[in-house]
Amino acid sequence: MRTAEQQLPGAVAGLYDVLHRRRDTRGEFTGEPLPQDVLHRVLGAAHAAPSVGLSQPWDFILVRDIETRRAFRDHVHAERSVFAAQLDGDRAEMFSRIKVEGVLESTLGVVVTYDPDRGSPAVLGRHAIADAGLYSVCLAIQNLWLAATAEGLGVGWVSFYKEDVLRRLLDIPARVRPVAWLCLGPVRGLPDTPDLERHGWRNRLPLDDVLHQERYRERPSR
Amino acid sequence: MRTAEQQLPGAVAGLYDVLHRRRDTRGEFTGEPLPQDVLHRVLGAAHAAPSVGLSQPWDFILVRDIETRRAFRDHVHAERSVFAAQLDGDRAEMFSRIKVEGVLESTLGVVVTYDPDRGSPAVLGRHAIADAGLYSVCLAIQNLWLAATAEGLGVGWVSFYKEDVLRRLLDIPARVRPVAWLCLGPVRGLPDTPDLERHGWRNRLPLDDVLHQERYRERPSR
Repeated sequence: MRTAEQQLPGAVAGLYDVLHRRRDTRGEFTGEPLPQDVLHRVLGAAHAAPSVGLSQPWDFILVRDIETRRAFRDHVHAERSVFAAQLDGDRAEMFSRIKVEGVLESTLGVVVTYDPDRGSPAVLGRHAIADAGLYSVCLAIQNLWLAATAEGLGVGWVSFYKEDVLRRLLDIPARVRPVAWLCLGPVRGLPDTPDLERHGWRNRLPLDDVLHQERYRERPSR
Repeated sequence: MRTAEQQLPGAVAGLYDVLHRRRDTRGEFTGEPLPQDVLHRVLGAAHAAPSVGLSQPWDFILVRDIETRRAFRDHVHAERSVFAAQLDGDRAEMFSRIKVEGVLESTLGVVVTYDPDRGSPAVLGRHAIADAGLYSVCLAIQNLWLAATAEGLGVGWVSFYKEDVLRRLLDIPARVRPVAWLCLGPVRGLPDTPDLERHGWRNRLPLDDVLHQERYRERPSR
């Protein structure tokens, strides 16, 4: 498939190149400054995402303050230990070698949140599926991730945290839900292989494993 | 910002072009066949998305059968009426002119689901945030949407349905959650302006409205 993509028109091939080069970045951040126009293009990409009922229910909190980041990093390390305690010997040993965050090494944190009141009460397309608003926020995150990749930046999604801890740290109101802490900034490069695959944690599945025709065909989860 | 993007290197500018041209498509489908290699590239793009703990918890059900699609379309129309009944006079009148789905006119439906058992029990990065697996599925949807846009196809996300109805229609097991019905296929073109904006339902917000520095700054939701 990758071969066929190389015969596509330049702009189309370029998009696939970015989609497949994109990586979750943890250890590659340089901490170098990020030019304001680049940051604005990347955030503008996120803000151009589709959203249910055009609600645009996302917010982006740019966190540079080192004290805030240190407090968050400490919490992430504590949550990492909670997870490690669930693992048996081999997995625990493997996990101990995996870096899960670059909170301090990245140039900044971008905290992405979901505001269910945006465009309420009658959000078109959300009455039957309450989570549709949350889904929109994730689409914005993927836009941000791809734009950052194209700009030569790294993005690392940190999810080892309790939502209420992050809420208190950034004065996020109770109705608003933190969805991600994204580490963002220049990197030395992007790894060819996902970190978790490189460490033997899990492998990428063949596409055929997740394709179904007309109806869901039950198989063991892998 | 769009002007500045035009001065970027070709591949980077090409990505922003796709990000900003992408639209939710309802009325533009032609129903023409979709070459198998194009469909596979688009699905491969979805499958290349990041996922929590490399769990890849998504499945894609390709629905072409016209009886299945007709049954789903009928359900969507019923749910449309449920929503319409919540609106007052002006909004109801505006909503009556908005098309919300192209289930029959598109070439096929791609139903995207979330399987929480994939990679379980210890999904790295999901112990503190159960929804992180659901978030991964949305990232795959945005990859699919952007690849389809680059390939000149339209995508329309239909969310006027009850999850259990779709589950029964496609034999989706109880533990697996349907996240989206995506209408996919060739289109006459993509609208410049989102449909909901064109109909006066809602406008796109300025980026500055959703940006915060260091901490969440409370403002009225718009």
